[in-house]
Amino acid sequence: MVDELAIATRDNLRSHLDATPYDWLILGVPQHVAYVTGYRSVAGDIFASHRMAALVNADSVVVVAPVADGGALLDHVDGDHHEPYGRFYFEGDHPVAGFADRHGSFAAALEAAARRFGVSGRIGIDTAIDQSEQTRLGSLPGIDEVDESADAWLRRVRSIKLPGEVALLEAAARLAENGIDAALSVAAPGVTERELVAVVAATMVEGGGLPRFLVVTSGERSAFSDARGTDRQLRPGDLVRFDVGCTVDGYWSDVGRTAIVEAPDALTSQRYAAIAAGEEAQLEMIRPGVSAEELFRTAVETVERGGLRPYRRHHCGHGIGTEVYEPPIVAAGVETLLEPGMVLCLETPFYEIGWGGMMVEDAVELTPTGARRLTHSDRSLRVIGQ
Amino acid sequence: MVDELAIATRDNLRSHLDATPYDWLILGVPQHVAYVTGYRSVAGDIFASHRMAALVNADSVVVVAPVADGGALLDHVDGDHHEPYGRFYFEGDHPVAGFADRHGSFAAALEAAARRFGVSGRIGIDTAIDQSEQTRLGSLPGIDEVDESADAWLRRVRSIKLPGEVALLEAAARLAENGIDAALSVAAPGVTERELVAVVAATMVEGGGLPRFLVVTSGERSAFSDARGTDRQLRPGDLVRFDVGCTVDGYWSDVGRTAIVEAPDALTSQRYAAIAAGEEAQLEMIRPGVSAEELFRTAVETVERGGLRPYRRHHCGHGIGTEVYEPPIVAAGVETLLEPGMVLCLETPFYEIGWGGMMVEDAVELTPTGARRLTHSDRSLRVIGQ
Repeated sequence: MVDELAIATRDNLRSHLDATPYDWLILGVPQHVAYVTGYRSVAGDIFASHRMAALVNADSVVVVAPVADGGALLDHVDGDHHEPYGRFYFEGDHPVAGFADRHGSFAAALEAAARRFGVSGRIGIDTAIDQSEQTRLGSLPGIDEVDESADAWLRRVRSIKLPGEVALLEAAARLAENGIDAALSVAAPGVTERELVAVVAATMVEGGGLPRFLVVTSGERSAFSDARGTDRQLRPGDLVRFDVGCTVDGYWSDVGRTAIVEAPDALTSQRYAAIAAGEEAQLEMIRPGVSAEELFRTAVETVERGGLRPYRRHHCGHGIGTEVYEPPIVAAGVETLLEPGMVLCLETPFYEIGWGGMMVEDAVELTPTGARRLTHSDRSLRVIGQ
Repeated sequence: MVDELAIATRDNLRSHLDATPYDWLILGVPQHVAYVTGYRSVAGDIFASHRMAALVNADSVVVVAPVADGGALLDHVDGDHHEPYGRFYFEGDHPVAGFADRHGSFAAALEAAARRFGVSGRIGIDTAIDQSEQTRLGSLPGIDEVDESADAWLRRVRSIKLPGEVALLEAAARLAENGIDAALSVAAPGVTERELVAVVAATMVEGGGLPRFLVVTSGERSAFSDARGTDRQLRPGDLVRFDVGCTVDGYWSDVGRTAIVEAPDALTSQRYAAIAAGEEAQLEMIRPGVSAEELFRTAVETVERGGLRPYRRHHCGHGIGTEVYEPPIVAAGVETLLEPGMVLCLETPFYEIGWGGMMVEDAVELTPTGARRLTHSDRSLRVIGQ
């Protein structure tokens, strides 16, 4: 049942391992684990305390995970390659049935897995392996060094998406923009933020996505950058800001659009024109070889030339994948040169407490010669109830 | 915009504070923060690194949170009672517009808030405040002691639900069982697990819920305790196990049902009768004054008397609220006596690798004299395609 994409991402990681100083990787960030195994733990989504790790070299993938993950993991790794901890009971004539209480803690299971599979040499770890676990690993026979740089290395590998990953990101982006369009088709004075949220969510779910964040805020609340929809009813003159995302098989979207109830006033029109021009300038210049900070500077300068000055932003975009924010961040000081296969969200939001907020955000895939938009809906200031 | 339920839960916490040795509470567990403020951070749902804290005494609630939460927080606390960290820009003639870079880290903002509001005496903290933050707090002038026992204390307070909380838990439970019923109404040989997941999710979303876990597994995969739906098609003879939950305004559900495609064989019928009897025994005996471990023992003994022996389980239920697992856990050694206002999920799952899995799980509210079921759908082994 291991899916093709999981095989492709694992093989992609392995193809890069030769060029690294790491003999083994020990990865605890759930999205890193998913990249090498295809396994996304249901319990890991629910419980903040859930811990998992993948131990990887050119030949082996071993997973350290709670016993309870042992059933679902059989779709992804051999039962013998799961080092379990904690108490849970499976029955049957299968090794997993004997897993309960094998180890009392994640750290104990991690050490046992490292010993059993002869993890040795230089070990690359990620940010999820804590200091005491690093120390414990470092004291094992045969382990020469525990190197935290593997997190940044793997994030660079993951920043170049494989075709199967782009397809999922595109599907997720389409569901987000379709959700916004569906909500706008029912938006009118008297309709609540919460009702619009429900329409966005329904559109995502109908298309096979899982809603993950559903920011639909109106009037003065549109200035609240990350806020949940309430029972507030739309009124004439309201800005309505959508910033929504879902996942499709673990791959995220993040799309922004803004609407106005009835007609915009001059200030609203001018400000929206400024932020839309900022995003448009990014969409026009994005291609391999451009740096993230050039994109950022262009966005800010264009918005300010449009009359929205000063335009203070900490970023104007970010990579997206199995995390909603991935490197590169489109920000000052980020010298990363864009490469084919990267997928970025570009955005130029503006939030003024007491007045309102507006944004436009789209996803693009870097191609060998330029970029391809993954989102296609109308990016203008949408008018509700005309 | 502060909602009535948030006021009720905050006041409930304060009504219990007098009977504690804590002068202030410093709470970092997101669900604890929500209990005293009503604020559930959108970013906190998305980013594992998101940190927040509420500083609470009889008179004040102060929130430490990223600047970016500052807009949405205005619905819940005065802007002056938000101590911000990090970089994000709001504009406007409002204090929040000056928040960027006020503090560089959560720990720095926490210390500043404690100083500014004169946090002193004996401080109760929860499990989200780490060792270095505890040490830093303990060294502040006027702070006599930092006491980790507040986490357990607050979890006990939260275990008794207010009427508004029960209403949300009931709404969430209904959406979960309605989702399962809707999926069963379309289930047939050839339909995939993934298609059934989509129906469950759509039902939840239509009713205002957010799908949170959607375990629909069939055939041998039904033994995988926490697994995502795949493209596997239902076949005659398959067990189909549903274990699904959503949230409604942050309150969870967790409901389980089992179906069989066409007719069950004798072993399947006998086993299902055994686990159903185990849950039924719990539902019959649950009332105030019964202990969690008595419920557990009764469930296990009843399943075993039904012929499923040994029945190895680490728990047969759990409290539920703004977390899917809350105290009390229905398990050996948990002497907690049940009280009116508790809401528990009761369950008797069984997983045999190579054969399949089955479960039945329902939610009940403890009343002054007994218990009231929050779920009402058919708990028998459901038959698909007859």
